[in-house]
Amino acid sequence: MVVITLTTDFGTRDTYVAEMKAAILSITRDVHIVDITHEVAPHAVLEGALALEAAAPRFPSATIHVAVVDPGVGTARRGLAVASGDQVFIGPDNGLFTPFLSSAGWRAFELRAVSRTFHGRDVFAPAAGHVARGLELGRLGPAVTDPVLLAWPRVRVTAGRVGGAVVHVDRFGNLVTSIEGDMVASLGSGVAVRVRGRVLPLVRTYGELARGSAGGLVGSRNRLEIAVNAGSAATMLRARRGTAVVVSRTSSPAARKRR
Amino acid sequence: MVVITLTTDFGTRDTYVAEMKAAILSITRDVHIVDITHEVAPHAVLEGALALEAAAPRFPSATIHVAVVDPGVGTARRGLAVASGDQVFIGPDNGLFTPFLSSAGWRAFELRAVSRTFHGRDVFAPAAGHVARGLELGRLGPAVTDPVLLAWPRVRVTAGRVGGAVVHVDRFGNLVTSIEGDMVASLGSGVAVRVRGRVLPLVRTYGELARGSAGGLVGSRNRLEIAVNAGSAATMLRARRGTAVVVSRTSSPAARKRR
Amino acid sequence: MVVITLTTDFGTRDTYVAEMKAAILSITRDVHIVDITHEVAPHAVLEGALALEAAAPRFPSATIHVAVVDPGVGTARRGLAVASGDQVFIGPDNGLFTPFLSSAGWRAFELRAVSRTFHGRDVFAPAAGHVARGLELGRLGPAVTDPVLLAWPRVRVTAGRVGGAVVHVDRFGNLVTSIEGDMVASLGSGVAVRVRGRVLPLVRTYGELARGSAGGLVGSRNRLEIAVNAGSAATMLRARRGTAVVVSRTSSPAARKRR
Repeated sequence: MVVITLTTDFGTRDTYVAEMKAAILSITRDVHIVDITHEVAPHAVLEGALALEAAAPRFPSATIHVAVVDPGVGTARRGLAVASGDQVFIGPDNGLFTPFLSSAGWRAFELRAVSRTFHGRDVFAPAAGHVARGLELGRLGPAVTDPVLLAWPRVRVTAGRVGGAVVHVDRFGNLVTSIEGDMVASLGSGVAVRVRGRVLPLVRTYGELARGSAGGLVGSRNRLEIAVNAGSAATMLRARRGTAVVVSRTSSPAARKRR
Repeated sequence: MVVITLTTDFGTRDTYVAEMKAAILSITRDVHIVDITHEVAPHAVLEGALALEAAAPRFPSATIHVAVVDPGVGTARRGLAVASGDQVFIGPDNGLFTPFLSSAGWRAFELRAVSRTFHGRDVFAPAAGHVARGLELGRLGPAVTDPVLLAWPRVRVTAGRVGGAVVHVDRFGNLVTSIEGDMVASLGSGVAVRVRGRVLPLVRTYGELARGSAGGLVGSRNRLEIAVNAGSAATMLRARRGTAVVVSRTSSPAARKRR
Repeated sequence: MVVITLTTDFGTRDTYVAEMKAAILSITRDVHIVDITHEVAPHAVLEGALALEAAAPRFPSATIHVAVVDPGVGTARRGLAVASGDQVFIGPDNGLFTPFLSSAGWRAFELRAVSRTFHGRDVFAPAAGHVARGLELGRLGPAVTDPVLLAWPRVRVTAGRVGGAVVHVDRFGNLVTSIEGDMVASLGSGVAVRVRGRVLPLVRTYGELARGSAGGLVGSRNRLEIAVNAGSAATMLRARRGTAVVVSRTSSPAARKRR
């Protein structure tokens, strides 16, 4: 039984997601269909790509991820089927799969979009159904070697200092940043996190923070997150997507001065 | 493996939907359960019927659709099991299944409601489970020949002109109208769409619209929709459900005058 | 095919729920995964426990319920796997499973939490996957005899009178109370419901209420609920969680005086 996931900006009030599931189940019922999220902000391709980056690697080998966040629907942009690692990604060629196209070892194929307005239901979902039944990706269309890539949230690494930004605010008000865990680890011990003029400790778990206190920690998705124990970091720090975050050694001049 | 869909106004915060799924799975686990939507506005039977009309035909043959949007819960109104086309519909007899009771070829049977307050869990979901296991519809109850039908959103067709209304505003602000695709096609070429005092072009895809511009197109559910490229038609045109929409030949006197 | 349910305060915008499902499906695909709700208010353990109390008993024998509402994440609190009745409950040891630990006949085992921040994905979901595959609960960890119990919403029963409170307001504005159906039944006939200074009739179904009128009834979860026919009791009575509710014989002195 193959797993097919869905990631869209369709919401769950309209019937679009159900129509995609109907298209898959009309081709094969020997599947598990799992919703990753349908609450990507409308047309926010980067947000969709970040959701896929967080969730897709958790799924078993051979999972097929269908994603549709598509400001260009109805235009001439291509559809893509991508094999990356041991998983498959199907959706518009607009950067949504950037995290899986960056390292070596991917193959991509063009999906011709014949539908006038609903590629998710009429092109991408059926393609996933056929791949679940065993169709080889290369049979879907000609090879693509130049898929669209998003400008990925940048991180600047200098001696003793990593600068990045908030890329996602979750339901609890935790701030997920563009700074990865190993960048933080590379700074060694004795580091602090700076955000919105505040200097916060780097801890290993929420539990080390006093109730109502903020701190940075490397979270479950291997990224630096800023959290408040029993509170919302977004509210307390008045931070949102794009807010700058810096991790640096506390022995740096700036930190010394602050003390 | 039979597909059972659920369409309700229950939302997803309460446990009502899960209780319905529990009732189905207590009878059979050889099913795919798919949510169409649970975000129908409370007690909005027509909205539920429109969701079913959009999504149900996309599902495979023999799919069982359970729908509960039921202002009359707790009263004496009947439950229904309807066979229409190659699908089955189960829910209250209040017009929710109007789109599937209009043409010939349906059969309906009465479901006796014994539960005091939650027919979805105690009557409709179990009935779907038993039908999924092979129970013939006629065994559920006596035949019904006079199901309740909703007054369906009207369309007035005159020479060179089709008048209708907005029936649904989707997450993107697209306006779905009561005007069907073939009505628009019957007008031939050279037609325009009028809504809220604006005259909009009829296009074939979103891509033909300039960024920020509005136009009409026959959408994925074969209805005239009004959309704004990279924007919300609902916001830009200050339109909502019920707003009048007219499609007419641009060579009509009114249109000529406008030019 | 085993049924696994999920109950969390994670919402559906983030990818946390999908990551839990990925963890389960990485261990076994021979499961039905059902969402009970992910809209528990953040960190509201009692609300999560009430959702489980309402929904879990509806599921078939041997269902595994994974629940994560966990203000103490990242602290030293234990994880639990509980066998109660014919079902299994897996999640934090913080009172979330109080309804299933009150009567006799349960067994509980400790789950060691090794993950730093996401026990739902890294501990509880995998445990459910292994139990679904046949692992005995006792193999998960040492027996626990002192699980955390919540202070449950109290009901005071005196002669001819039951006092309780609103414990949940549903999507329709119905007020679910802490008063159970058999407590109401024990008062006999001729009782009235008092809430926010109003005296309401006790009816058997919504249908007995005039349109726009409020009344009490024993609802589908065997609790006293207060509803308004075609309206919201929460809005009409300005009631919310915690609002006091009293059921008493109408022949009591207070009731007589009121007349």
